[in-house]
Formats: sequence, structure tokens, C-alpha cells
Amino acid sequence: MRILVQKFGGTSVANLECMQQVKQKVLHARENGYKVIAVLSAMSGETNRLLNMAGQWSQCPDEAEVDALISTGEQVSVSLFAMLLQNEGIKARSVLGFQIPLKTNTAYSRARILDIRKDTLVELLEAHDVLAVAGFQGINDDNRITTLGRGGSDTSAVALAAALGCECEIYTDVDGVYTTDPNMCSAARKLDRISYDEMLEMASMGAKVLQIRSVEFAKKYKVPVRVRSTFTNDSGTLLTQEDSQMEAVMVSGIAYDKDQARITLRGVPDTPGVAASLFCPLADAGIVVDMIVQNPSLDGVTDMTFTVPRKDLTRALELVEKTRAEVGAKEVLHDLNVCKVSAIGVGMRNHSGVASKTFATLRRENINILMISTSEIKITCLIEEKYTELAVRTLHDAFGLDKDQSQAG
Amino acid sequence: MRILVQKFGGTSVANLECMQQVKQKVLHARENGYKVIAVLSAMSGETNRLLNMAGQWSQCPDEAEVDALISTGEQVSVSLFAMLLQNEGIKARSVLGFQIPLKTNTAYSRARILDIRKDTLVELLEAHDVLAVAGFQGINDDNRITTLGRGGSDTSAVALAAALGCECEIYTDVDGVYTTDPNMCSAARKLDRISYDEMLEMASMGAKVLQIRSVEFAKKYKVPVRVRSTFTNDSGTLLTQEDSQMEAVMVSGIAYDKDQARITLRGVPDTPGVAASLFCPLADAGIVVDMIVQNPSLDGVTDMTFTVPRKDLTRALELVEKTRAEVGAKEVLHDLNVCKVSAIGVGMRNHSGVASKTFATLRRENINILMISTSEIKITCLIEEKYTELAVRTLHDAFGLDKDQSQAG
Repeated sequence: MRILVQKFGGTSVANLECMQQVKQKVLHARENGYKVIAVLSAMSGETNRLLNMAGQWSQCPDEAEVDALISTGEQVSVSLFAMLLQNEGIKARSVLGFQIPLKTNTAYSRARILDIRKDTLVELLEAHDVLAVAGFQGINDDNRITTLGRGGSDTSAVALAAALGCECEIYTDVDGVYTTDPNMCSAARKLDRISYDEMLEMASMGAKVLQIRSVEFAKKYKVPVRVRSTFTNDSGTLLTQEDSQMEAVMVSGIAYDKDQARITLRGVPDTPGVAASLFCPLADAGIVVDMIVQNPSLDGVTDMTFTVPRKDLTRALELVEKTRAEVGAKEVLHDLNVCKVSAIGVGMRNHSGVASKTFATLRRENINILMISTSEIKITCLIEEKYTELAVRTLHDAFGLDKDQSQAG
Repeated sequence: MRILVQKFGGTSVANLECMQQVKQKVLHARENGYKVIAVLSAMSGETNRLLNMAGQWSQCPDEAEVDALISTGEQVSVSLFAMLLQNEGIKARSVLGFQIPLKTNTAYSRARILDIRKDTLVELLEAHDVLAVAGFQGINDDNRITTLGRGGSDTSAVALAAALGCECEIYTDVDGVYTTDPNMCSAARKLDRISYDEMLEMASMGAKVLQIRSVEFAKKYKVPVRVRSTFTNDSGTLLTQEDSQMEAVMVSGIAYDKDQARITLRGVPDTPGVAASLFCPLADAGIVVDMIVQNPSLDGVTDMTFTVPRKDLTRALELVEKTRAEVGAKEVLHDLNVCKVSAIGVGMRNHSGVASKTFATLRRENINILMISTSEIKITCLIEEKYTELAVRTLHDAFGLDKDQSQAG
């Protein structure tokens, strides 16, 4: 039995016309001989409508009840879609999380998948040609409905494909993964392939194509994931393991993230434990600290600079001010007008000179680099926000991303 | 542990303000020392909204999928209501059909309850003060969601009370069961008590207070059911087993049903099997035939008259015309402007003269009786529709229903 998992997001099932498009994608896979698992999200807007209802009573409603509430969104999508397919004479049915079951831990609203009963799916696929599976939802050991967090349907789809050992197509409103944001740089080019690690770095930079967790899942279980558009026939971008062809390319993409704020704690006495006393309270408050730079100590005093998501700036500043008073540091500075720009590519592992080329390109445009951080496959520079577009374009150009490099390799 | 089942219909949970009223009823029961099972319907209009969505694709969508779709209505109600209670500091949670489980047969859209796991409910009630249980829904042996048919939440509530051996309160927008329709007769009086059998006869006459199946369930398992209003503090009407006090009253209520059409097959050869050849096709077509009268045969020829629901008249006439041709009967007549009026009371079993008093009352008002049928506790007359109000009022008066008869005995 050849199986294909296809995942369709909220905009793809928003209404009657959209669902017809989704139907075409499913029928096409059927024509190619696949049994199809169509993982659907709630119709766009539905989850927010339900959350607003929950918000009537309380600012922080019980998460178990919120999950029971919002999981109805996917239930509506899959039952309607199953009816649509049946109406075309296709053997289809809806499948909910508890019916598989797709078991998760008990972390309501952000549950993690523990187990998927493969046997049930195979049995159902023997009796049906298409299963419309509710994304985003599972069931925990208490027999209560859980949800996987925003974008969790991507994770559902990849996890189902992992369980069944098949490929997963993620349909969205873009036709693949680009070398950079096409809205920022008209020379942006769609990638035919991208490695899991590169996609993870892209996603962590705020690229909205795929949820990070789904990519991690795909990487862990080596699930081939193809990102495609519901509204075109383009073959999209394949997420896969690295291969030599990929490594031949120095840089695969340029990403940026404007959702950053920089905080500097100046005049910190450089004693053991001072970093912990600064960052532990932030971690406890659930604030994700990203880039961290500590200047070399001078006269036993140092500066510590780091970035946080903009929405968390106010809370972060309160906590940092408390630490400042405790450790006897001089002052707290912050800056909202910053942006991270990254060059990403698994080829960096084998190519030298990516960092220097990045710095030289930015210098040529007189863009000042405020902070630098690097990973094995990424060079990130924090710059002033006003230079974002200029930086993205010139780096895209400098690394030749407007040309198909898989040939050039 | 003292347990009370309270059922609230769609108008009772229609919006924020209504749910606050429901909350008061639950809190009141809590104050009286009860653990509460609140059985909720979908918010009014929600089931129809979902059915309309299903109607987009097909005139007769798959019933299993329709059940998966419309059961979300109750799921939304119970999760929102659990949140509301939690917000008041009450230990509450939602419970869905599959979580109990409330097992049904596989007859989607009109499933019958087979079993309710009492242990789960008791365990949940030990940990919570209020369970918001989704009405109308269950789960079958295929692990698929079923629904119990329109008004099925009443049946859910009574079945839960039967499983737990406790009383069931059905909250609605009227404050109890009346001697007759108050819109038709201003002297109508609310009954403090009514027997299951009387309620069944009332319900079969179209009284909308309770679904017939829920009353049958209550009768079978001897569940005390109290019909009350969500919007007043009236003690409502108690459905219970007959007792001597009830039997002391000749007639408990006057019911009427305008949803009737009369069909007459004239000049039928009076041979064995002719009734079967007339009524079997109707039954096969799902048309409920109610009153049936066959005139005494004259010269081997007879007339057969019966009533059907008005909505089924056209289909019924087609089938009867076919039978007419087959059996060689003379003609088919029909009449839409008819109404059934009934006097109902368990006291009839012990009192003679109810029938004659009914006929005499109608004659006094010059109301012609078109057909008569009787059961152990009901006298029904088919009359011309235009006399409905007059017949109801004069019968109500003739049997002294404007006065409390439980004292008068």
C-alpha cells in the first residue's frame, strides 16, 4: 500500500471553494496510486473565534477546557471534507485524534506526541481511500483532548508520516521555501531542496513556512517533507537529509528577524554566577534569550548584551533591573530598532570564508554590526533595523543566491 | 454522595447571560449538597448552522460524518460552561460522550443508548463538584461519534440519572407541564405532578416539553424527572410513577395536534390482507400512520380512514393511489383541515364516563367528531381544525382542569 500524507492549513480549507482545491490535490494523489491521509487544520479564523469565546469568562481559562473547545475546529473541517469526498464517490471518512489514538503527554495547549497507533491507520486505509485526519489534536492518558500548539497540524502530519514511513506534503499559500523573503528581495529564488538543519535555522529566524517542531520531528524520523502551494501545481521544496549536492553550496538562504530587542547591562562586577543571576529569572519567566555577548572583563567589570523577543521587552527590563540592583551593576540600556540577519547553509561546514564574506559585504554598504553570533551552519549579525532590506539584498547577491547553485556547485 | 442531573437546552446556553442563569441553577444545587451533572445542549442555532454547512455538499450527507460534525456543538457548550464554573472557583470539568463512555448502537443521527459506564462518572464526581456533560452524543463500537436525534440531550440526561440512580431536572423555557396549551386556553394550569404514561400521551400529541424517548427511558428506569424553567425558581412539574392521588383525577390534561391529515380509501373490497397491502408500503416509507378506522363492511365493500403527519401527505397519497389501483378500490379522498384533540389521564382506568363526557361536551358546542380512537388513558377525537381552540377550552372546563384536583380527589 503506497501512502501519502498531505497537510492543508486553515486558509486551504477556509470555505467551499478552497476545499474544492484541496479535493483536487487529494484526487491527484489518488490518481498516482496513493492512499491519502489528509491532515486538516481548522477553517481559518475558527480557532480565534473559539478562543475569543473562552476569553469571555477569563483571561487565563483552564487549558484542558480550551483544548476541548478549540479542537472542535479541526473536527468540523475533517467531517465536512469527508462528506465532500464521499459526494464524489470516494471512500473517505474523518478520523479524530482519540480515534487513532494519537497519544500525547498532558501538557494541554502545547502537548507533545508520544505515540501513534499505526495499526488503526493501516486498517482504516485498507477500508478507505482517503482519511481526513484532524490535525493539531491528540488524547492523553487521562482520556482528555490535548492540542499541540499553534501550527501543530504540521507536526501532526509529519508524525503521521513518520509512523507510516511515508512522505509528507505540507500545502500552504506559498509554493515552497525561498532563498530569502521575496517581499524583501525580488531576486529571491525558490529552493528545490533544503536540509532539515537549514530549515530549522530558517524557521527559528521567523520564516513562517513550517513550524519548528514539525521540522525537528521530520529530522528526527527522517521524514521527507515537501512544502507546496494549494493553489498551484509547482513541485515545491523538498526538506530532506543533507547530501553532497547541498554541501557544495556555501549558503542556501538569507533570513532576517525584526522581532528583536537588545538589552545591555553595563558595569557588571565580573564574579562567578553573575550570568546565572541575570538569565535564570528570564528563563523562569519564559522569556527566550537569543544572542548573548559578554565583553572581555576590564578592571573586574564587564558589559553583558543580549536580545529578547520584542513582546517580552517590558517584562525582561523589569527582571534585569532587579538583577542590576542585586549584583550592583551600573545601568540597563535597551534598543528596539534592531534586526537579526543570517546567512544559512550546511555548506559552511566545509567552506571557509562565509563569515568574512558576510562582514565584508555589510561593511561595503556601511552597515554597522552590533552583535555577532554563529552556529555550525549560520552566521548571524544584529544590525540597525533600518538597514534590513539593504543587508538582505546585498548578502543574497554576494552569495549568488539569485542563481541556481546546484548546477554551479 | 448525593447526585443531581440537571439538563439545560439550547436556549438556556445560548449566550453569556443565559449561561450565567444556568450557573445559578447549578450553584443552587451545590448549596443543597448535591454533586451536579450538568447536561448541556448546543447553543441554540448552532446545530442548524453546522447542518447547513453539511448541506453545502450534498442533500443527504453521510450520517456518521454529520454526527462527527454536529456533536461539536455540545462540545463547545460544555467546555465553555466548565470554564465559567472554574472561574467562580468551582471544581468543574467537561465530559464528552466518548470519555464516559456513553455507548450507543451504530444508528447514526438516531442512536440508542446501550450502556453508560457508571464507574467513570462516580470517579470524576469524587474529584469534581460539577461535570458538564455533552448531551446528544455517544460513541459506538466502531469508536465513532453518534448522536441521539433531535432533543436527544433530554434522553442523555435521563439515561445518566438512570445510571446513577438519581433525580433528573430538565430545564427549559417553560416552568412545567400544563393541563393544556396556555396559548390556547388561558385557564391552563401547571401540574405539580404527572405520570410517565400521561406525559407520553402528551408528548405523542406534539407537546414539546419533553422528547418521547426521554420519557420512555424515565418510565423504564423509574427516574424521577422534574421539568423546570431556567428563568424562574418555580418547582416545576415532577414526572413520576402513578400513585393513588393521580388516579383520583379523571383527566389530567387536554392535548391537541394540528399536524395531521386524513386520508380515506373508499370502496375497498373487504378481503383478507387488504389492510396489510394498504399500510405496509406506508410503513416501509417511514410514514407514521396514527388513527385508523375501518367501517363495517357493507356488501363486501368497506371504507378505510386514517391520519398521517401533514408533511408526509403527498408521499402517502402516491402510495395509497397505487394500492387503490391494485386492490380495485373506488377512490382516495383526503382532508388537511383536521385536528386531533385528546383528553388524557391515568384516572380513566378507574373512572367510567370520560368518553361520554368528552363526546357530550363537543356535541354541546356543535363540533362534529370525524374519527375517534381510544387508549387506556386517552380519548382522542379528530375534528375540523377551525374548532380546535373551542374544543380545547370547553373540554378543559368540562373536566375541571382549571381547578387543582389533587385536593378535590
